[in-house]
Amino acid sequence: MENNKRYESGLKAMEELFSQDVRTGMEGMKKISPDFWEMIVSFGFGDLYARKSLSLSQREIITLTTLITQGAFDQLKVHLQAALNVGLSKEEIIEVIIHCAGYVGFPKAVQAMGIAGEIFDKNE
Amino acid sequence: MENNKRYESGLKAMEELFSQDVRTGMEGMKKISPDFWEMIVSFGFGDLYARKSLSLSQREIITLTTLITQGAFDQLKVHLQAALNVGLSKEEIIEVIIHCAGYVGFPKAVQAMGIAGEIFDKNE
Amino acid sequence: MENNKRYESGLKAMEELFSQDVRTGMEGMKKISPDFWEMIVSFGFGDLYARKSLSLSQREIITLTTLITQGAFDQLKVHLQAALNVGLSKEEIIEVIIHCAGYVGFPKAVQAMGIAGEIFDKNE
Amino acid sequence: MENNKRYESGLKAMEELFSQDVRTGMEGMKKISPDFWEMIVSFGFGDLYARKSLSLSQREIITLTTLITQGAFDQLKVHLQAALNVGLSKEEIIEVIIHCAGYVGFPKAVQAMGIAGEIFDKNE
Amino acid sequence: MENNKRYESGLKAMEELFSQDVRTGMEGMKKISPDFWEMIVSFGFGDLYARKSLSLSQREIITLTTLITQGAFDQLKVHLQAALNVGLSKEEIIEVIIHCAGYVGFPKAVQAMGIAGEIFDKNE
Amino acid sequence: MENNKRYESGLKAMEELFSQDVRTGMEGMKKISPDFWEMIVSFGFGDLYARKSLSLSQREIITLTTLITQGAFDQLKVHLQAALNVGLSKEEIIEVIIHCAGYVGFPKAVQAMGIAGEIFDKNE
Repeated sequence: MENNKRYESGLKAMEELFSQDVRTGMEGMKKISPDFWEMIVSFGFGDLYARKSLSLSQREIITLTTLITQGAFDQLKVHLQAALNVGLSKEEIIEVIIHCAGYVGFPKAVQAMGIAGEIFDKNE
Repeated sequence: MENNKRYESGLKAMEELFSQDVRTGMEGMKKISPDFWEMIVSFGFGDLYARKSLSLSQREIITLTTLITQGAFDQLKVHLQAALNVGLSKEEIIEVIIHCAGYVGFPKAVQAMGIAGEIFDKNE
Repeated sequence: MENNKRYESGLKAMEELFSQDVRTGMEGMKKISPDFWEMIVSFGFGDLYARKSLSLSQREIITLTTLITQGAFDQLKVHLQAALNVGLSKEEIIEVIIHCAGYVGFPKAVQAMGIAGEIFDKNE
Repeated sequence: MENNKRYESGLKAMEELFSQDVRTGMEGMKKISPDFWEMIVSFGFGDLYARKSLSLSQREIITLTTLITQGAFDQLKVHLQAALNVGLSKEEIIEVIIHCAGYVGFPKAVQAMGIAGEIFDKNE
Repeated sequence: MENNKRYESGLKAMEELFSQDVRTGMEGMKKISPDFWEMIVSFGFGDLYARKSLSLSQREIITLTTLITQGAFDQLKVHLQAALNVGLSKEEIIEVIIHCAGYVGFPKAVQAMGIAGEIFDKNE
Repeated sequence: MENNKRYESGLKAMEELFSQDVRTGMEGMKKISPDFWEMIVSFGFGDLYARKSLSLSQREIITLTTLITQGAFDQLKVHLQAALNVGLSKEEIIEVIIHCAGYVGFPKAVQAMGIAGEIFDKNE
């Protein structure tokens, strides 16, 4: 795949995952480091999310799990909304967090569940 | 759910996930701490894997992801086999690891992929 | 132990550890996921804190240490207060953090000590 | 405290914690980097373990907990033995690991319990 | 090296790294635990930063990398400024973060780059 | 940069870092997942190591630091040798590990120093 195509396919995956507002916020990165922005889009979204074999909702299950495990709660907010956007139900998201409790311990699971509650409220 | 039922439903989930050999190995824990063994079965498998809302193969996607993220490679071996046992394809497992590369970095993803290669060879 | 008893013994442990205000805040979890709330109380507090062999103040030494090590500073706040509630002295808590400095590095120890300072001030 | 005294008090703490064999093994570090060896003894043991306010057995509870949390299982082996040496019972050590299960998840707790089983066997 | 000299050489390293304001803020630690403050200065800065073999700017590359890897973003702010103070260019700092993306994953790298953007703005 | 060029520049960076033997070992990944191998070379080495602004020896300082911080000791072995290959001295590598001790704690630093000792011996 040519690099232009990687970038374009990354942008397309981002459109499916995030609202226009969120994507505009992310583009702030372009000003700090245009090269890093290009990597985020081409590699992070073009090379990864745009691949076959797993659906976007399966990919968001993976993303939520790794973010909870590493305690990356700022990114978790964005991806909890993305998970809803690509079709995961609240029930499924809660279930991911409960499953994680046994694998990463309660402190991170409790924090994740609290953030999920906030995101769910915004989607009422 | 009564405690006996939690334990029994944990044993049943373990039967679907692991071979008899693996389960016998796990029972070694019973000798070190019977209480801890009871928790592993009743909470770890009875309260978590036996829940509805996510299938066993979806749960293994979560489990693989959190184990890769925390670098728990001994447990990863066991759950790579469990993932195959409950119906994930090699292609899907590889895809989980590739997706993780962008979220946890290449060192852990490379190590996970090497272990996956070994488990796949055993299943030829 | 029956499940009702696990839940009740969890509530009892929570009463020894946390003020009424903190417990009311925690109950917000019940609204997001009643099942997760049940697990927190029955497993997190009933199965763990209510066990014998270690005192509540020894258990808080463990809890403070693991929270510092994993950088879970929001939960650390709550448990620094709990540690005081179950009888650890300021001097002992400071000592836990100093010991951790050698095991987890200064960044996390410094952050923990700063938070401890705030909690100590509230308890003047 | 003068630096000579820091080093001497570190050596003394190490004698209480570790067997002669283990200490001889640790001294291999002296050959790779004499400066680092000096830091381990003077800071790691002299400045930390030799402090008052917590007993050596309380310090080993902290050490076991942080090692389990960060997955440092090679060091855990050495400190499980040290924990026994300074007077923690098997029952108390098992209890530390069980308490950790709720805070760091089962994978690390299970691995720690397996290693504890091996160390206990050597002490029969 | 005598202990007084360790402390003095620590203070001297801190003067090269941090502004007077930052150092005054850090001294708040002295009130919570004078012993811990002494360790931070004598060990953290005296024993480590004041050593030869690596320049202060090389040491800040190490510090930025470990803080990004462990997600210690509060400390990262302080050390991004310190990195500029001891002569690293914005371009080099951006490059450290980009290199880290492949080793720790994008969530932590993205968060680090956002903070770097804020620090760079303050230095315009 | 076209994708062919990313892959080629990745291979070129790998030649500077690793011996033929190590690179042949790494290529085993190609058999498990050709796509993942392509990412490792094109992104991991082509997009990252082949960039300007930092020298290969500065990049290895970053790599060693992040591997020590995350406890990725299998990869650390390979990169300790790579660090020597691109011109870091033993003294500088030891210094990186000592600096890390204050930031990640002694358990990981001690383990890293032990592995460094083994690699240094092989290079006598």
